Amino acid sequence: MRATVMFGAGDVRVENVPDARLVEPTDALVRVTRAAICGSDLWPYNQMQQDEAGRRMGHEFIGIAENVGADVRTVKVGDVVVAPFLYSDGTCVFCREGLHTSCLHGGRYGADDVDGGQGEAVRVPEADGTLVVLPVGEDDALMPSLLTLSDVMATGHHAALAARVAPGKTAAVVGDGAVGLCGVIAAKRLGAERIFLLGRHPDRIALAKEFGATEIVSERGDEAVERVRELTNGFGAHSVLECVGHDEATETALGLVRAGGAVGRVGLPQHQAIPTTLKTFFDNVTISGGPAPARAYIEELLPDVLEGRINPGRVFDRVTDLDGVPDGYRAMNERAAIKVMVTF
Amino acid sequence: MRATVMFGAGDVRVENVPDARLVEPTDALVRVTRAAICGSDLWPYNQMQQDEAGRRMGHEFIGIAENVGADVRTVKVGDVVVAPFLYSDGTCVFCREGLHTSCLHGGRYGADDVDGGQGEAVRVPEADGTLVVLPVGEDDALMPSLLTLSDVMATGHHAALAARVAPGKTAAVVGDGAVGLCGVIAAKRLGAERIFLLGRHPDRIALAKEFGATEIVSERGDEAVERVRELTNGFGAHSVLECVGHDEATETALGLVRAGGAVGRVGLPQHQAIPTTLKTFFDNVTISGGPAPARAYIEELLPDVLEGRINPGRVFDRVTDLDGVPDGYRAMNERAAIKVMVTF
Repeated sequence: MRATVMFGAGDVRVENVPDARLVEPTDALVRVTRAAICGSDLWPYNQMQQDEAGRRMGHEFIGIAENVGADVRTVKVGDVVVAPFLYSDGTCVFCREGLHTSCLHGGRYGADDVDGGQGEAVRVPEADGTLVVLPVGEDDALMPSLLTLSDVMATGHHAALAARVAPGKTAAVVGDGAVGLCGVIAAKRLGAERIFLLGRHPDRIALAKEFGATEIVSERGDEAVERVRELTNGFGAHSVLECVGHDEATETALGLVRAGGAVGRVGLPQHQAIPTTLKTFFDNVTISGGPAPARAYIEELLPDVLEGRINPGRVFDRVTDLDGVPDGYRAMNERAAIKVMVTF
Repeated sequence: MRATVMFGAGDVRVENVPDARLVEPTDALVRVTRAAICGSDLWPYNQMQQDEAGRRMGHEFIGIAENVGADVRTVKVGDVVVAPFLYSDGTCVFCREGLHTSCLHGGRYGADDVDGGQGEAVRVPEADGTLVVLPVGEDDALMPSLLTLSDVMATGHHAALAARVAPGKTAAVVGDGAVGLCGVIAAKRLGAERIFLLGRHPDRIALAKEFGATEIVSERGDEAVERVRELTNGFGAHSVLECVGHDEATETALGLVRAGGAVGRVGLPQHQAIPTTLKTFFDNVTISGGPAPARAYIEELLPDVLEGRINPGRVFDRVTDLDGVPDGYRAMNERAAIKVMVTF
């Protein structure tokens, strides 16, 4: 079969790889019908050391169950399924708490003999715990929004929860990528009264406004902090969604937040220490977040997608087939595209 | 009047200072009957540059209202009152949210023409918002426990809340000082099933066990992390109360915490950045805390003290008069005393 493989920074190719196949009786074999390129795929795209073994890419996909192992009970052949960006057994102590990202038997795609999502098919481990069967046909018009449940919409929701968005609160979103834009949707969905988006790109700003952003902050760094404070009587935002991961974005997020407020961080941190100040302590600021337990959120968000109350699929502003994936990486890396959907 | 003044590291003296007096109509003049030396007083005791102007010390006290300004309504002359370690107006947007430490008109004792608590009398600004009238006589046997409401018991409670202690959870307390010991009380009070105290000093361990610690971890640093993980199936503690503030203690706290858990930090951070790792992010660990809004907690904790359900006053293992305050600093600094109470 054909699948996306990264060999080093800037070097993404669509290659012939061994066919995906069932290994464990708890596996499902999913023929991919939609996949996506993720902002987090751009970290290795910019930094990966050249490695001719290559790395299989992709962790956001929807597909059709083509085969299931003997122990799989909740997924049938022919089902349309969405996969969260990590697999998980659904039964361990962490999964039962809704923290599927810490599953004791979980893992990630594109590693340890598990296929990546940007390819024709994927062996999905722990299929019962991982996959969610969708009540739609494989070409449903809602596919783009359903696909975001695998990662970006779930991640935006996680940022909003970690930042403790609630009715009447002021939220600020740091990052105008697909996750940040989904964070705007999530903040609105959870009842935020005012939603600031930090961004400059006209298309992204327009989309953020459609999603519910009430104010756009085009300044950066300290000037953005100052602007948000001006807009909030000097106090800052109750809830800050940090959707980037750079130190500068983290510093901005911590600068924006109101005393007693929370920063929900979902951007993959590029450094170890959190670059905070004593003010964060004296202001009783909470720092929370991490990878989103998308599996826990899919069922919560699914009705809103199915009934059209949220339309996160609009973050896909480019569609390609598998051959176009390398161009898709380039476009996202140059910020010419917000997010790329791959059709098969 | 006489009061405690610090002139530099290791240089604490009891000096004659101008009498405390009312300045604003919202002030109360409190004759101090009990005061305490705080672990946080030891930071300047170890680090302060010599300064002959001196710094007035003390922020934990109980006393009698000797005079009140014309606008004070909730405190009458003769009332026995406890002061939280910061003053606050009780009416601003932050006070109304229970975050009195961020009061728009609040401040600290021993600065800006406000007396320190380790002296014969204190001008207390914003008396209505700050002081809590106690329904006891000035020599009540409960005085030591009531005095802890001004800071250490409130701070231990804050650590436990920030660490999200709840029934059935496992808590770990980093720091066997008075705050850590009060953190044990708070964790038990909030229903923790297991409470680990990290400590080595036999007297402190004995007290921690009386307060509700179920297991003592005498290792330090990475070995303490390993020990707590051994005790918790490798997972770590749901709730970690960081009651020290050193980088090493913070690293230990972050090492101990279970995925999905929280570190409540109340130890004054000795550095800016939080020395965390990517594991903190991948584990979805929450970092919260800061100075405790003691004013918000006094009324919550007071019934438990008055009815004897908690006895935090036991952290005072040494009592002195005002002249003995310099010796009290020395004893606490050498860890010969857990916490010193000053009687007048």
